[in-house]
Amino acid sequence: MEAFSDGVLAVAITLLVLNISVPPIRHGGVGHALLAQWPQYLAYTTSFLTIGIIWINHHAAIRRLHRVDHAILTLNLLLLMSVCVLPFTTSLMATYLKRSAGENFAAAIYGGSFLVMGILFLALNRHILVSKSHLLRPQLHDQERRALLRRSLAGLAPYGVATALAVVSPYITLAICTAVAGYYALPITSRTDHRDGSPHAQALP
Amino acid sequence: MEAFSDGVLAVAITLLVLNISVPPIRHGGVGHALLAQWPQYLAYTTSFLTIGIIWINHHAAIRRLHRVDHAILTLNLLLLMSVCVLPFTTSLMATYLKRSAGENFAAAIYGGSFLVMGILFLALNRHILVSKSHLLRPQLHDQERRALLRRSLAGLAPYGVATALAVVSPYITLAICTAVAGYYALPITSRTDHRDGSPHAQALP
Amino acid sequence: MEAFSDGVLAVAITLLVLNISVPPIRHGGVGHALLAQWPQYLAYTTSFLTIGIIWINHHAAIRRLHRVDHAILTLNLLLLMSVCVLPFTTSLMATYLKRSAGENFAAAIYGGSFLVMGILFLALNRHILVSKSHLLRPQLHDQERRALLRRSLAGLAPYGVATALAVVSPYITLAICTAVAGYYALPITSRTDHRDGSPHAQALP
Amino acid sequence: MEAFSDGVLAVAITLLVLNISVPPIRHGGVGHALLAQWPQYLAYTTSFLTIGIIWINHHAAIRRLHRVDHAILTLNLLLLMSVCVLPFTTSLMATYLKRSAGENFAAAIYGGSFLVMGILFLALNRHILVSKSHLLRPQLHDQERRALLRRSLAGLAPYGVATALAVVSPYITLAICTAVAGYYALPITSRTDHRDGSPHAQALP
Repeated sequence: MEAFSDGVLAVAITLLVLNISVPPIRHGGVGHALLAQWPQYLAYTTSFLTIGIIWINHHAAIRRLHRVDHAILTLNLLLLMSVCVLPFTTSLMATYLKRSAGENFAAAIYGGSFLVMGILFLALNRHILVSKSHLLRPQLHDQERRALLRRSLAGLAPYGVATALAVVSPYITLAICTAVAGYYALPITSRTDHRDGSPHAQALP
Repeated sequence: MEAFSDGVLAVAITLLVLNISVPPIRHGGVGHALLAQWPQYLAYTTSFLTIGIIWINHHAAIRRLHRVDHAILTLNLLLLMSVCVLPFTTSLMATYLKRSAGENFAAAIYGGSFLVMGILFLALNRHILVSKSHLLRPQLHDQERRALLRRSLAGLAPYGVATALAVVSPYITLAICTAVAGYYALPITSRTDHRDGSPHAQALP
Repeated sequence: MEAFSDGVLAVAITLLVLNISVPPIRHGGVGHALLAQWPQYLAYTTSFLTIGIIWINHHAAIRRLHRVDHAILTLNLLLLMSVCVLPFTTSLMATYLKRSAGENFAAAIYGGSFLVMGILFLALNRHILVSKSHLLRPQLHDQERRALLRRSLAGLAPYGVATALAVVSPYITLAICTAVAGYYALPITSRTDHRDGSPHAQALP
Repeated sequence: MEAFSDGVLAVAITLLVLNISVPPIRHGGVGHALLAQWPQYLAYTTSFLTIGIIWINHHAAIRRLHRVDHAILTLNLLLLMSVCVLPFTTSLMATYLKRSAGENFAAAIYGGSFLVMGILFLALNRHILVSKSHLLRPQLHDQERRALLRRSLAGLAPYGVATALAVVSPYITLAICTAVAGYYALPITSRTDHRDGSPHAQALP
């Protein structure tokens, strides 16, 4: 299961680059044209880092198992499907961000796709930690399991807020999603206690 | 063989998203344009889940072997080829579903591509379980082998029906294929006896 | 090295499908439009099977090694590059096959890309079997090594002929390449002695 | 971590081929049209070999570790992101090389993307060899570690020069990048001491 999941995440994260387009040849500066499509770069970076964080956490969650059952396989499949949709929602966001029509709708779908991904990750995690705790490799303490789940749940909050605030401005949605990705992806070596109330923290051993 | 097959299935399942298109920028709602392309989402979901199920079953079938021969390698290659064609047939289905010309033909090809995939999976399975039973890792009982094959065969039926009914309506074809995918992909934990007459069941340990 | 090579071959084989295009919506039959693009299907099938055969043989060649050196790594990289180019040459062939201008040139490039791939595979094989025989896992007899190399060399012949005959007709080129792929990919279980003078045979244990 | 990184590099290296376009059908020679797009082939080859070299070195760097921490994971993620951007910058370079507007800017971005990749590789390497030396599998001598870092640093020089000289001519940028890739990718078996002052050398055992 890990090899296939790793493969899907690796392809999805790499396909994102297809959304960055080479400006058509025109007289006038290519520099200006490249700068004008900054939403592509920002949406790309955010989605790339988010999938990367999901990969790290997914890995940590799967490694806790010594056996999988049908429910885990299908929940995992649904989670992968939500990740594979991101190249589309990212492209949608990048295309509509600076427009004056449809930009709120596109942002809501972008934030919503992160939210759905987070919910499915929580569902997979909950199923592993609660329903199928007998499949866990090293038996975790009840306290640890509850802490892991609490963080998974808390991590949904920013994506919920980002999706809801899309009606106000798509820039807010993108800013929140980018901030979340940046926060977890920054190589801050001093962050050692991992009690930051986030689902991403569980990736850290 | 497993690493390569996993890789091919992972890429094929992820490439499906390239068929979902961002609506061109126009005055008027992007929401409406996004809703109008629902066949893309439905065909995407169905194909994604079907490849996912094939992956689960493929894995189970391969794990029964302790050695491979030339026939297994080439049957496996043909099976992978039938899976790799799905992004094309899925796109064909999504493009033509709501049209008034060619929609039956496109649906027949869509259902047919699932049928061919099922037949090749049956052929691979039959070759493994019948012709090359000496390559099987844990010797399976004759009864178990026959049950596995019977299910593989029975699992072809819905795809045969879906393909045939494409002449009536493409919606019927898509509905059957979606129903099959949804049935196996739902994380129903209580489904434990796996005697549902389907090729997909053999993935369950 | 194997994981990366497997990954590259898996992606290249799956990307081929992007060359099969969904006919644009028009009044009139989609069936006719789909039939008219048969060169796409034939070139697709041939390239898919050829990459599949290369994968099988590559696997067999690499498995003979217990250690790799810089020359093996870079020869392998060049071989992978020649495989990665196939989606382009396949598309070129499919686009120009039925045209009355450029079809010979396109066919020569198509056959030539297979020829280059074969030459690089021979070079890798020769380097492994002759120059770096001390890296081989089970010491092969001189006789076996010479037989393997002879087959690798003989396997280049059809691609050489296919490339040369592109000046006569692109159909001949495609037919030869398809015949070679079909010959090795057919799951003929009775082919057991593998003394058929081909580089593809060495994949068989 | 290795499986995912291998997957991402494998997909990125294979996606490069999507930038090579089949010339549209026109009366007149396809040969001439194919020749005219030589910047596509050169940029493709350079980027392919460079990613291949990065893969070899990445592999060597990771294999020195027996455990990873958060900083290594995120530095690795940033490195992968810089590699995944290459299909875009390669396409940009190939599109603008022969133009009379924007060609210097495109070349600067092309060279710059290699430079950033090199800097991130140096950062990852430095973190592994200096900050987290206790995670190293076989304890390296201080001297060896310093030599590895010195080479990583020296290897940045050509990319820095290539980026800076983009203002003079995009051909110089491409020539330097191609020369670097060709130098390391040539299967020169006699290059055994690896004291050539380059970050690529550390891939050699």
